Amino acid sequence: MSLLVTGSLGIDTVETPHGRAAEVLGGTAVYCSFAASLFVPVRLVGVVGEDFPPAFRDLFSSHEIDLAGLETRAGSKTFRWTGKYEGAMNEAQTLGVDLNVLAERGPSIPASFTDSDYVFLANTHPALQRDLLGQLDQPKLVVCDTMNLWIENERDELIKTLGVVHGVVLNDCEARMLTGETNLIKAAKRILDFGPRFVVVKKGEHGSLLAGEDVVFVLPAFPAEEVRDPTGAGDSFAGGMLGYLASVDRQDIGALKQAVVRGTVTASFTIEDFSLNRLRKTEKHELAGRLAELLGATQLSA
Amino acid sequence: MSLLVTGSLGIDTVETPHGRAAEVLGGTAVYCSFAASLFVPVRLVGVVGEDFPPAFRDLFSSHEIDLAGLETRAGSKTFRWTGKYEGAMNEAQTLGVDLNVLAERGPSIPASFTDSDYVFLANTHPALQRDLLGQLDQPKLVVCDTMNLWIENERDELIKTLGVVHGVVLNDCEARMLTGETNLIKAAKRILDFGPRFVVVKKGEHGSLLAGEDVVFVLPAFPAEEVRDPTGAGDSFAGGMLGYLASVDRQDIGALKQAVVRGTVTASFTIEDFSLNRLRKTEKHELAGRLAELLGATQLSA
Repeated sequence: MSLLVTGSLGIDTVETPHGRAAEVLGGTAVYCSFAASLFVPVRLVGVVGEDFPPAFRDLFSSHEIDLAGLETRAGSKTFRWTGKYEGAMNEAQTLGVDLNVLAERGPSIPASFTDSDYVFLANTHPALQRDLLGQLDQPKLVVCDTMNLWIENERDELIKTLGVVHGVVLNDCEARMLTGETNLIKAAKRILDFGPRFVVVKKGEHGSLLAGEDVVFVLPAFPAEEVRDPTGAGDSFAGGMLGYLASVDRQDIGALKQAVVRGTVTASFTIEDFSLNRLRKTEKHELAGRLAELLGATQLSA
Repeated sequence: MSLLVTGSLGIDTVETPHGRAAEVLGGTAVYCSFAASLFVPVRLVGVVGEDFPPAFRDLFSSHEIDLAGLETRAGSKTFRWTGKYEGAMNEAQTLGVDLNVLAERGPSIPASFTDSDYVFLANTHPALQRDLLGQLDQPKLVVCDTMNLWIENERDELIKTLGVVHGVVLNDCEARMLTGETNLIKAAKRILDFGPRFVVVKKGEHGSLLAGEDVVFVLPAFPAEEVRDPTGAGDSFAGGMLGYLASVDRQDIGALKQAVVRGTVTASFTIEDFSLNRLRKTEKHELAGRLAELLGATQLSA
C-alpha cells in the first residue's frame, strides 16, 4: 500500500550531553520517511529552500523514498532548528528557530500521489494539514501530529483538523495542554471526543499509550542503554507505525497495537546517534532483532 | 509459604490536589502488609509508640496479618510523616518528619517468625536491615528497599546490605543516585554488580523495570484514571510482589515477571484513595479483574 508523508525538512544543530551536531539533516518528514521506508515505499511531500544541501538529498537515494513531492523553492531558505537536551534528555530546549520556507505557502501534492492510501500529516499549521488532506482522493487512514504552538494559538483550527483525521499522535505535554487533564488516560479519552478513532500519546523514555474506543494499550520504550540524541524519536515512531500499517494494509485496533510496537522499535535506532546517522543505516534484520528484544522485555509470553 | 514484612508503621498527614488526610495510618510495612495479605498470610515486624491509636490496630484484624512482631514501646512515640503532592503527583514533598520510635533501637523478630521463607526488609537503616536478617534462620528470598538518605549518608552500609539480599526494590531517583547513571537500564545493571540477583526500579506513573542477569522486563503502571494519593504505592507494589512470590513459592525470573505484574495491580488500589482506605477494602475478585485489565492493556496476546 502507498504511504504519503508530509512535514518539515530542516537543517538542525543539536547539542546533548553526548556531543554536538551542527548543520545536519533533520525535520519531521525526514525522520518519518526514513523510518517508514523500513516497511513500505514512501512518498514524501515537503518544501526546502535553494540552500538545501545536495549531500542531504543524496542521503535519500539509498532508500525507497519518492521525492516527486519535494519542492525546492527558488529564493527561499530551508527551515532551521537549533536545540539542546540536558540530563535525562526528556525534553528539547529550542535555542533558535528560523521557519524560513515553512512560513511561506505550503507544498502541493503531485497528481501521482493523490491516490495514497495511508497518510501521515506531520506537525504543521492545522489549516495546512486540512488543505493537504483536501488534495487527496480517498485515503484509508490519515494520522496527524501537532505541537504546543497550535494548541495554544490555533486551537479552533486544530480541533477542526482532529475532526477529519482517523488518528492523532502527540506527546504527553501536548495531550495535557490540549485537554487540561493531568492524567494521560483521561487526556487521551478527551482527545477521542474531538473525533479521531484513536490517539497515541508519546511519553519519550517512558514509552507510549494508545487509546481507542474501549481500548487502552500501554507500551514501554525500547530498553535502550545508549541514547545520544532523542531528536526525531517521535517522528521515527510515527513513521514506523504508519509504515507498518501500510505494509499490512490494516487499520483495526489489533494492527494499531502491533504498529505501536514497530514505532517503538524504529525510534530506538534514531536515538542512538545524531541526525539520521543511525536510522538511515538500519537494516531489516536489525529491526527484526530488536522487535524480538522488545517483545521479550515487555511480553510475559515472549 | 510464610512472608515476613519489616518496616515502619506511622501516622501520616498528606495533602494532594484531590484533598487532605490528617493523622491517618501509614508506614512502609503497613502498606506492604495489607498488599501482601491479598496473596498470603503476613507476619509483621515493627515498632510503634504508646500513642499508636487502637483504631489503627483494629484495621489489621480483618486481614491475615499476624501482629506478634509488633512492639508497642512504652514511653515512645509513633513515627510521623507529613507530606504533599502537587501536579502530576510524581514526587512527594516531605513537609515534616518525626522519627520518634524509629530513631530508637529496632524491633526484634519473635521466635515464632524466624523460620520465615520470604522476607521483605522495607526501607530503614541498612545496618538494621542486616541485623534483622541475622535474626532469621534461612529465608529462601530476601528483598530490601532503601532511600536517598542512606544512599547519601550510609553508602558503605547500604552496599554491604545489597551484598546479602537476593533482590532490591527502589525508585528511579534512588537508582540514579546510587549509581551515578542517568539511563535506568544501565543503573539497574550497575546495582546488580553490588550483589543482588535482581533489581526492580519503580518509576511511579511510568511503571517499573525488572533487571536480572541477562534479563530486562519493563511494565507500564496500571492505566488508572483516578489517582487521589500516591502515598504507599511503592510499598504496596513490593507487598503485592512478595506476597505473590510467597504464594507460588518461586524465585525464578518467570515468577519475578509475574510478581511485578501483581505488584502493579495491587498498587493501583492504594492510589485511589488516601491512606489504606481503598487497599484494605480490596477483594480478591477485584484484584483478578484488574489483573485481566492490566494484561489486556499491556500484552499483545491478551
